Order: sequence, then C-alpha cells, then structure tokens
Amino acid sequence: MFEEVKMERMTWREFEAKKDRVLILPVGATEQHGPHLPLCVDAVLAEQFACRLAQAVGGVVAPTLSYGYKSKPLSGGGPLFPGTIDLNGATLQQLASDLFDEFVRDGFTKIFIMNAHFENDPFLIEAMDLCSARYGDRVTLVLSNWWDPMPEELIGRLFDEVPFPGWAFEHAAITETSLMLYFAPELVREELIVDSKGAAPCPYFKYPIDKDAIPSTGVLATARSSSAEKGRLIVEAVLPRLVEIVGTAFPG
Amino acid sequence: MFEEVKMERMTWREFEAKKDRVLILPVGATEQHGPHLPLCVDAVLAEQFACRLAQAVGGVVAPTLSYGYKSKPLSGGGPLFPGTIDLNGATLQQLASDLFDEFVRDGFTKIFIMNAHFENDPFLIEAMDLCSARYGDRVTLVLSNWWDPMPEELIGRLFDEVPFPGWAFEHAAITETSLMLYFAPELVREELIVDSKGAAPCPYFKYPIDKDAIPSTGVLATARSSSAEKGRLIVEAVLPRLVEIVGTAFPG
Amino acid sequence: MFEEVKMERMTWREFEAKKDRVLILPVGATEQHGPHLPLCVDAVLAEQFACRLAQAVGGVVAPTLSYGYKSKPLSGGGPLFPGTIDLNGATLQQLASDLFDEFVRDGFTKIFIMNAHFENDPFLIEAMDLCSARYGDRVTLVLSNWWDPMPEELIGRLFDEVPFPGWAFEHAAITETSLMLYFAPELVREELIVDSKGAAPCPYFKYPIDKDAIPSTGVLATARSSSAEKGRLIVEAVLPRLVEIVGTAFPG
Amino acid sequence: MFEEVKMERMTWREFEAKKDRVLILPVGATEQHGPHLPLCVDAVLAEQFACRLAQAVGGVVAPTLSYGYKSKPLSGGGPLFPGTIDLNGATLQQLASDLFDEFVRDGFTKIFIMNAHFENDPFLIEAMDLCSARYGDRVTLVLSNWWDPMPEELIGRLFDEVPFPGWAFEHAAITETSLMLYFAPELVREELIVDSKGAAPCPYFKYPIDKDAIPSTGVLATARSSSAEKGRLIVEAVLPRLVEIVGTAFPG
Amino acid sequence: MFEEVKMERMTWREFEAKKDRVLILPVGATEQHGPHLPLCVDAVLAEQFACRLAQAVGGVVAPTLSYGYKSKPLSGGGPLFPGTIDLNGATLQQLASDLFDEFVRDGFTKIFIMNAHFENDPFLIEAMDLCSARYGDRVTLVLSNWWDPMPEELIGRLFDEVPFPGWAFEHAAITETSLMLYFAPELVREELIVDSKGAAPCPYFKYPIDKDAIPSTGVLATARSSSAEKGRLIVEAVLPRLVEIVGTAFPG
Amino acid sequence: MFEEVKMERMTWREFEAKKDRVLILPVGATEQHGPHLPLCVDAVLAEQFACRLAQAVGGVVAPTLSYGYKSKPLSGGGPLFPGTIDLNGATLQQLASDLFDEFVRDGFTKIFIMNAHFENDPFLIEAMDLCSARYGDRVTLVLSNWWDPMPEELIGRLFDEVPFPGWAFEHAAITETSLMLYFAPELVREELIVDSKGAAPCPYFKYPIDKDAIPSTGVLATARSSSAEKGRLIVEAVLPRLVEIVGTAFPG
Repeated sequence: MFEEVKMERMTWREFEAKKDRVLILPVGATEQHGPHLPLCVDAVLAEQFACRLAQAVGGVVAPTLSYGYKSKPLSGGGPLFPGTIDLNGATLQQLASDLFDEFVRDGFTKIFIMNAHFENDPFLIEAMDLCSARYGDRVTLVLSNWWDPMPEELIGRLFDEVPFPGWAFEHAAITETSLMLYFAPELVREELIVDSKGAAPCPYFKYPIDKDAIPSTGVLATARSSSAEKGRLIVEAVLPRLVEIVGTAFPG
Repeated sequence: MFEEVKMERMTWREFEAKKDRVLILPVGATEQHGPHLPLCVDAVLAEQFACRLAQAVGGVVAPTLSYGYKSKPLSGGGPLFPGTIDLNGATLQQLASDLFDEFVRDGFTKIFIMNAHFENDPFLIEAMDLCSARYGDRVTLVLSNWWDPMPEELIGRLFDEVPFPGWAFEHAAITETSLMLYFAPELVREELIVDSKGAAPCPYFKYPIDKDAIPSTGVLATARSSSAEKGRLIVEAVLPRLVEIVGTAFPG
Repeated sequence: MFEEVKMERMTWREFEAKKDRVLILPVGATEQHGPHLPLCVDAVLAEQFACRLAQAVGGVVAPTLSYGYKSKPLSGGGPLFPGTIDLNGATLQQLASDLFDEFVRDGFTKIFIMNAHFENDPFLIEAMDLCSARYGDRVTLVLSNWWDPMPEELIGRLFDEVPFPGWAFEHAAITETSLMLYFAPELVREELIVDSKGAAPCPYFKYPIDKDAIPSTGVLATARSSSAEKGRLIVEAVLPRLVEIVGTAFPG
Repeated sequence: MFEEVKMERMTWREFEAKKDRVLILPVGATEQHGPHLPLCVDAVLAEQFACRLAQAVGGVVAPTLSYGYKSKPLSGGGPLFPGTIDLNGATLQQLASDLFDEFVRDGFTKIFIMNAHFENDPFLIEAMDLCSARYGDRVTLVLSNWWDPMPEELIGRLFDEVPFPGWAFEHAAITETSLMLYFAPELVREELIVDSKGAAPCPYFKYPIDKDAIPSTGVLATARSSSAEKGRLIVEAVLPRLVEIVGTAFPG
Repeated sequence: MFEEVKMERMTWREFEAKKDRVLILPVGATEQHGPHLPLCVDAVLAEQFACRLAQAVGGVVAPTLSYGYKSKPLSGGGPLFPGTIDLNGATLQQLASDLFDEFVRDGFTKIFIMNAHFENDPFLIEAMDLCSARYGDRVTLVLSNWWDPMPEELIGRLFDEVPFPGWAFEHAAITETSLMLYFAPELVREELIVDSKGAAPCPYFKYPIDKDAIPSTGVLATARSSSAEKGRLIVEAVLPRLVEIVGTAFPG
Repeated sequence: MFEEVKMERMTWREFEAKKDRVLILPVGATEQHGPHLPLCVDAVLAEQFACRLAQAVGGVVAPTLSYGYKSKPLSGGGPLFPGTIDLNGATLQQLASDLFDEFVRDGFTKIFIMNAHFENDPFLIEAMDLCSARYGDRVTLVLSNWWDPMPEELIGRLFDEVPFPGWAFEHAAITETSLMLYFAPELVREELIVDSKGAAPCPYFKYPIDKDAIPSTGVLATARSSSAEKGRLIVEAVLPRLVEIVGTAFPG
C-alpha cells in the first residue's frame, strides 16, 4: 500500500526525479496507548495521513520518525508507563534539523511535517525556525497535526455518545481508536476497550510526576463508541483540508 | 511594594533564613504588545502574580526572567516585530536549569515557576524534567501560568462585550490590558487602544513566517472593554487558586 | 511477519511483560544503493536480522532507526547522491543514547544493537560507552553488524564468479543484493543490475569530496551473480552466530 | 526614574524608532554582598550606570540581566554563600549571544554591555567574539565595567581612611557600599557595616573551595568610611568617561 | 631535528611567510603500549611522519595533538589500562574543528592531518566534513594514517617470523615497535619485549568492557622480530607514498 | 632533560606506580610573541615550570596542551596575528574536563594545572569547577600561573631599566624573553629585540578588534634589558613558591 509514494522504496534516481515535489516527513512516537492499542499508534497515524496526502498531491513520503518527544501525563500518560520511549527535546530538534538540511541539499524546497504526537510540536518548530533562518525564502517548511485542520462540525458526529474531552485528553480515546480501527484493525484489541473514567484536568505541571494523577490503564478518556466508520469520517474530513494547506502554503 | 518578599532586596543571611519557604521564579518575556502596551507586559504580570502569591504563602520571589522563548505569530505576533527579543529554546532551558540547581544547592526544595509567556512552557518544562530526574523526591518543582487556574465562569464576565478568542489570541487583548491597567496603569497608553480586527486562526505552522498573517498592530484580539476593574477580578479569582496549588503541590 | 517480536505492535502491558528479554535495536540508514536497490536497504537488513534473531532468542525488536550516520564515498557512495540522508555524528549518538536510557528505565538490561550501516559504528559505540559508564554492571550493551560474524569460509561460496572486494566496497553489491533478493525481492530491480566497474581504493580521506572518485551508479562493486539463494546462505550462516553472541554476552 | 530610556517601558513602535541609538545591556548578578548589602547590588549598579549613560548619550537600556556567572571566592565570596546564584559560563555566554542577535535583527548596530560583576567578563567577551565573527563590520560591540574607566586619582579620595585593596577585593566594600548609599540607600543596612578583616590574597585557585579562606561575613575588604558622597564622586568621575567611550567606539 | 619545519619554533612572521605551503597536523594519543613502549608512541609516530613529509614537500608541521579519542580493547587495549588517556569523541572533533578554522583564518588552504591512532579517524573526519561544508572549494583537507599507504608487498618482509595479525591488532606489536626502534630507540625497553599470545578477534562490541578479553600486558600481537631496520623499511616505503598523496590531493 | 618526570616517556606500568603523586598538567598556547620569540613560548614556559616542579615534589608531568584559549589584543596581541591559533572557550574547557576525568579514573587525586597563557584561566577554572562538583572531596585540583606566586620584591630587580607595565602587557616582553633566554636560548632571535613602544591601556573591550590599537610587532611592552640571568632569577624565586603551594594544597 502506498508503494509509489514511499521514498524508502525508491532508488536514488527515482527519488532525484521527484525533487520538485512536496517532501512529507511523518513524525510519530513510541508511546503507551492503553490496553487496547499498540505502542505504534502515533507512528501509524502520521504515516497513514502522510501517504494519503502524498497520493493526493503527488508528494514523496520520507521514512517515519518512530520515536518522539517526551509523553506528558495529561496528554499521553507520561514517562512512567513501560513502552513509552521518550527522546529529549534537544535530540528530536537536532534530528529534525539534520533531516531538513539533507532534504534541502538534495534539492527539495517544499517540506511538510505531518505530526501525530502532541508533544513533538515545540521541538519540531524550533528546528523549523532555526533551519528556516539559514534557508531564507528558497525553502518552505510546514507543520500540521492531523487534528488541527479537523472541521469543528465533525466533533459532534464523533462524540455522539460521550462528550468531547479536548484534544489533549483524546489519547487512546475515540479519535485515535477509530483511526486505528480504520487503518489497521488487526492492531486493535477491541475486547480490551473499557469504559474507564478519564483523566482529570490540572492547572499546573509538577515534578516529580504523580503517577496517581493518571488512570492506571493509560487511557485518558473513554474509547467507547469508537468505530472504523468514525475513522473513515475523520480521514475524509481532514484529508481535503491537508490538501488545501499544501496548495496554500506551497503555491506554484 | 512587595519589598519583604523579593529575594533581590534581601541580604544573604535573610535569604538563608527562608530556605524552607516556597521559592517563586517569575518568568516573562520582552515582547511586542501592540501600540498601547509596553514590551515588559509578560515580565510585569509574572512578577505581580509571583509577589502576591509570595505574600499569601510566605514565599520568596527570585529576580524575574525578563527574556523568554520565541514569540510565535499566532500567540504573540512573532519575531518580526521590533522589541520582541527571543531566546532560543535551548538557552531558556539551560538558564532555568542552572537556576533550579542553584536554588536547590542553597537548600530550597519547593520551587514554583510563575510563567506569563505562553511560549515558554515547553522549554521550562524540559528543564524541570531533566533537573527533577537528578533531584529525585527531595525537590518539588511546579509551573503554572496565570491563566491556567482561572475559573471558567469568569470568562463570561471578562468577555461581556466581545467574544473570548481563546487564550493564544489573548495577546495584548482584554485580559493582559486589564491586568496592566490594574497593576501599572502608568504603562498603558489607553488612547492607543483601537478596536482592531483580530488574527485569524491557522491550522498549521509555516516558515518563513508570513508577516501578512498577523495584524500589523501586533494586537491579536481586540482590547476594547478592558478595565482596571476586570484586572482586579482576574487577580481576585486567580490568586486563591494559586495559593491552593501551593498547598496541594507542596504539602507539609 | 515477525508480528510477535515487534515492540511497535505490542501494547504497553505486553511490552512490560518482556522486560527480562533481550531488547534488539535495528539501526539502518537511508542511503543510495545503486540503480537496482531501494534507499531502505540498510534499514531492511537491520530489521530482518533483528527479527530473526529475536524469534530465535525470545527477544523484542524496537522500531528500526531508518536514518544513520553520513555515508562515506568509499563505503556507501557518499553524500552527493540524492536520497542519501545523513545524520551528523552527534545526532545519531544522542538519539541512541536517549533510547538506551529509556529501555533501561523500562527495566531492560540486555540491549543488542543490530547494525547494518558500516558508518554508524563509531557513533553508536560512543553512545554505548558513555551510557555504560552511567549504568555500571547492571546493564549490558552489545553491538554487532550482520557481516561481522560471517564465517570466513562462506566468502568463497558467495564470491564464486567475482573476487571479494572487501567489506567496505560491498555496497549495493553481491551480499546486499542477495540479501534483498531473499528478504524483499519485490524491492529489487534485477534488470538494472549492471556489471559495472567498481570503486578504486584510496589510502586517504579528502574534503571536498571528489565526485569522480566514485562510480556514477553508486554501486561500489559488481552485483553480478547475486541471488536469493546466496542471501539465504548468508542468513543461515550468520543467524546462529548472532544467537551465539547473545548467549555469550548476556549469560543467565 | 529613567523612564524615558528603559526599553521595557516602551511600546514596540517607540523602540523601533530608536534603532540608530546605542543599545545598552546592563549585566549584573545575584550574589551575596555581606550582611549590610542586598543580593541585587551588581544588578542595581549595572542598571544605574546604564541608565545614566543612556540619558547622556540618547541611548536605550534593555532589561538588566539579573543573574551572572559564578562568583569566585576571592572576588565575590564564592558559591558557598546562600543567595549567590551562579550561572554556568556556557549559559551566560549563550544568553548574551541570543540577545546580541536579537538586537541586531531589530536593526541596532551599536551595542554597549555595561557590566558590574567582575566574573562575567570572559563569558560575555566570548559571546561578543563569536557574534562579531558573524556580524562583521556592520555591528560594533563594546563592554565596559564601571570600575575600568575610573580615574586613578580618585582612588586616593575614596580610600582616605583605609588602603585600596585592589579591585577584586572591592566586594561589598567601600566602592560598592558607597554607590549603593548614593543610588538606593533604602537597601543598605548601615548598622551592619563592621570593620572586619578582609580576605587574604592567594596565588592559586583550588577546588574544592576552602570555605575558611573567605571571611565568614562575605565582605572581602572593609566597608568602613563608605558614604553616599563617595558614591556621588564615583558616578561623577566615571560617567563622563563612559560617555567618552561611547563617542570613541561608536563614531558617526 | 626537523627544526626548520616545526611551526612552534617559528616566529609569527616566519609562519606567515609559509601560508601557501601544506600545513601538516600530527594527531597521536596518550595510550598504553605494553610493557616495552612508552605512552607517547602514537604522538611520536604522527610527529615523525609529519616532519619527514614536511621536509620532503616544503610543508609546515603544527604542534602535535598528544591526546586522542578513546582506545578500544581490540585496537589499543581499551580504557582500563592506566596511562590510556581518552578524549570524548565530541572533544576531539571540536578541537580539530577549531584548529582547522584557525589555520584557514591565517591563510592556509592545504591541510594534511597525519594520524597515528586508529580510533581517531571517525571524529577527525566528522570535523573535516563539517568544516569543509563551510569552507567550500577554497580549502582542501586530507587525512592519512601512516599505515594506509603502506605497500602490500612490504607486509611479507615485516612479518617474516610471525603472521600479520591485521592492522587493528598491530598495537605495540612489530610495526609500532620497529618504528620506535628506528625513531627513538632510547624510549624502547627491548628487554621487556615478550613473545606473548595476542588478542583474539571478537565479532561484536560489548559494554561494560571485559578486561579478560585483552592480554594483561596490553600488547595485542607479538612484538618479537621487531627491529630498527624494519622501522627504516616502513619509513622508506611509506614516505614516498605520502609525498604522492600530497601531490595528488593538493595540485598546483 | 626531565626524562624521569614526563608521563609520555613512561610505560603504563611505570605511570600506574605513580598514582599517589601530584599529576601536573602544563597548559600553554600557540601564539605570536613578536619578531624575536617563537610561537611556542607559552607551551615551553608551562612545561619548564611543570617539569622543575615535578622534580622538586616527585610529581608526574602530563603531555603539555600546546593550544590555548583566544589571545586578546591587550594581553597577547589578539587573533589577527598569523600563528596565533585560538581555541574556543568551550573547546578548552571540554578538553581540560576530559583530561581531569581520565587522570582521576587512573587513580590520581592531586592535579596541578601549570598555566602559562593568561587568557586560559577562566575556561580552565570552569572545567575545574564542574569536575570538582562531581569528584567531591576525594580529588583536589589546583591551578597556578607562573607569575602569580612571584615575590613582589623581584619586580624591581627585573625592571631595573624600564618600568613594569603590568602582567597583561608582559607579553613577549622582559619576563617571557628572559625565561626563554634561560630555558631555550636557541629559540630566541636576540637581534630582533627592538625597543618598541608598548601598547596603551584601554578601559573597554571592543569588537570588531581595532588592529591599530596593538603595536604591529606584537610586542606589548619592551623586551629591552631581558637576559638569561633574569630568567634564572625568576625561576629561582618562583619555584620554591610553587613547591610551597603543592605542600599547602595537597597536604598528606
């Protein structure tokens, strides 16, 4: 699937021939997603959105970054869950910076970062900022999370049985579970979806982290009522918006 | 004002005598705040909340960090406005880390970071995370922004004439202007408050930054209907919550 | 394939249950491999050997590092080929270091780095050295390349039609092509294998790099006489040796 | 006081209008200054000289850096006194470097660093050196300490009752105490000035630091005979010299 | 000896006059070399080859780097021997980078790194790579180890009594001992040369390092049959090749 | 000369046997010293004082650091003279830090840094500070410059024909020239000593550096009246003081 857009499957000559296209870099994480979802959720979502976008706009998808910045308690359950493998901020930033530099050296000037892990943003953006200062106007860098361009009106349809808990708490919950049921149902343990009580908001950050403040399952809001159909709805709503961003941000 | 809580006014012996107290570090920024507010808004707000909190809980306020992390277009107008002086993320992180280490070496074990610049959070938290891994349980670090503990119900009273644009766009707008009118009215050019059109949301980050995407005044949402009275309302609602956080996070 | 050993497909609880096992980290590269092989060769080889080893020893395979250290002209064709995406040494080192730390925090004490990109070694080893100094005796770190444990006697069987050019020049040549034909034949463009003249050795490093010193195809030694059967021979000879290393290096 | 020269009180438009002026960055420290002086002495002195200089030359004063490089035993009492908050050298250097870059990006080309903490010099100068290599001739950076341009003949008048102990030992002693009595008498505990024995010189540096080598008060030479009048004498002698430096170093 | 080529003995004016010449930087190590050789072997060899090469090509020899990157068990005995003083990779890289920059600032454009410590290569080359990216075509950097250009046919004459163990194991063995007997016989304890059993190869790297895997003398292959005459043979074979490299790499 | 104290001439077993001794690290520079002195002056002076001190106290002398921190205009002539090879501060600091760590790992607990280049101090001391924080009380680190312990009364005898210009200006002047005449007369071009006008003091640092502010010879104060005899006087006065420092700082 998506064979024709994946850089990793191309020879260097095939890749070289596409250097005027949009280069899409999917960025995920390796992070706990409760008892019913695998550790690769963010990597899978980033790669799926990236490949579908690439198909739509004739882009190229670079190998996915499978490790991301530190999971935070109230957006991903935090570092105390085994399987949550956290990079330091400086490491992710340097990794992204090296990759941008190399894509640019190979002649690409339109770089789209497709992110699926909430916590990655600030360090990816710091890399974009510092690289862009060196590139000037000849290179355009864009970052979008898959949830950012989601139409407001869709929220109601997705959260028809339970209330929308806000994006930070949508971890291993309805949107991620539905997308995984749509993209890779073989990786979802549906029988382990429980209608657990979600996390409670907290108006401050505290270290050392209180493990008690997070549901012991790692699920921050209920995944009940997730479905492949809802996953499809999200993709069909978000993808055209991503295509639109590409059109706007990389004109000509 | 606040003479008795400011570390900078103490001798070393006076400071030493307080090492079992909460040490509060205000973190602001030097950043454009439209035609009607000075560059020091975030530093003033951080320091004011810090000093009032210190008075309430018997804490000590360290010298304010007057420079913060990079202003972003849709939360502070971005780097292209003169007077917006941006630190790199690594610099702010290292600065905070050195300070935490030094307060801990002096015997303090309760450190409260009072932040007033939206963009600072991820790099301050990265410093907290890395330092806490070295300190273990003997030191507690807490970060709160002044807007985080604000009661939901207050929003309606503050935004009685114009709609609430979301916290990111509340830059040089009603809450910041009202707080400055309450804390330091001599620094507000009320005659320059104009009822400008605010910024439009954008579901992605892009570099190089489009200057056209931001209102040319640097005001991201209207400041119309700001008042010292609204500033007072905010302080009176937020302060007890901050005191509560101190009580919860640093028990005993 | 290999579903049961891949960390990314596990939930956090499944992963936690395996923390006394060997954790295998495959490290590859995104690098030109001539006109007939895709950019992912090193990543595929690292992952294939890692998964087969994990099956044999009951280990867990972490997500593959798809980007590696800088390709050098006389071991990978060098940086001037499009599609060769090079990390700085410090970046790869920091990335590996963060990952080791996280696996150790999750309770793993036996870490095996399965490398397939010649140039990665020094920076992975530097990370191992610095991390091990912090871990002391409670954690064992092992690195092996797939070619290191290859029995000497196999060389003659693989190089039955052309002479063995040495490991550095075995880039996009017989061993890599044969392994790809065995592991992932759909990714090999057999019709593009040409019996080109290989690279000439050079007793020094020089910058700026002379592009003329490298065959323009990126193939450093002929791939003629490659076959899936030779790939199978390599795997069947190397795998038992890797199992033996695991037994020796992580006793008990 | 000094309202009109302080950047922090300006709006961004007011600041922008001054970009052809001299930008003065005061750099202090948070450091013990004996039983009679507050921790902010170096910050106050740096800011006072900066503001007075700015008034004289039409310059702009950026927010003071309140934290400086590590206090050394025989120039500031060293790190073992509570209230002495030390930045690492690399942190101060990076902080200064970021600020220079930002002032230059805003259009300023004449930057004057007004330092009041002896130990800051090497790391501020390293930042100046590295930044200047990037700026070339279009930006001029100058650093002066307030004691550097002091006329030799003034020493006799200041040290009329006790001998001049050298600048390194003039810590919490006659010059700093007199300046604080002149600038901010409300911060001086005059009753706590004791005629203590000063520190003894030592021809080497040693770690770990011997606490016994430093007077337990933190005062390195007697403050006896300090007066606001002596403070005024210093200011009246030094200020014209600073103005002269500005005229010489930033011609035209 | 070699007075006329050593930079350190020149005045600045003499050095300036040579800026169109080849600048040769010898890089060694401080590392155990068994019971019969001193810790300076690699530094002496680097400097001797550098000076002889400089005489032959009219070059200038910069002060030798006496400390190198970490000794590895199977190429130098590893870090556990006293007297083996290891730099971190990042330190050697930064040191080399600073030196290249300075030689280039002084007008030199032909830089030859004469290395004599196996483990230094990757970090010296990383420095060359990063510096060269900044210099572009106006500066040429070359690195050669003294053993790289050795003619294959010489191996047989040197290893007339014992088999050639491979370059990695030639540590404190025949080639190094013979060269030291030729260059600096007063530093060789010939009576302590014992015909010890050498190290055994190992197809993987492991941390923590097994001290038992290395001969307790630190000699990785026998030094028996070493002689000053063999040292002379090496020099007479290698030197013309180094001269040839200079001619090829720095034409015109 | 000094064969028995130089670490570089020892085997690892000889070095190991001395681990309870004082380890002396000479730190110099490669820096212009006018038309009459070679670039190695600071390295020679550091090594000579180190070896004589080692003989007197039974210490061991590690290989000299031949490259130091950036020369400043008014203490060494500055970076614009060819032959002045400047390390960045961070590089020297990291280099020293790595060496301290390695000496300590080898069992040494008494480390004496013998410095001969004025500008090195702050970065060597920063390394000492950071390392000592890790070592605690079990390791003692001392730094002395050769001029620091010089008896005041000797100044008059050395400056019998010309006035003492202060230590910063004693660059390529009477003390350095006399010491070189005593230690290594073959490296001094006596015929090129001219009675030039020295540098003028300046109460501020400025970048870009004004080349005109420094005498074009690079000599900051006259070397007239230098003699080997004066060199001998310095050594005979300073050496006993250095021995005394060793006795005081490393008791027992």
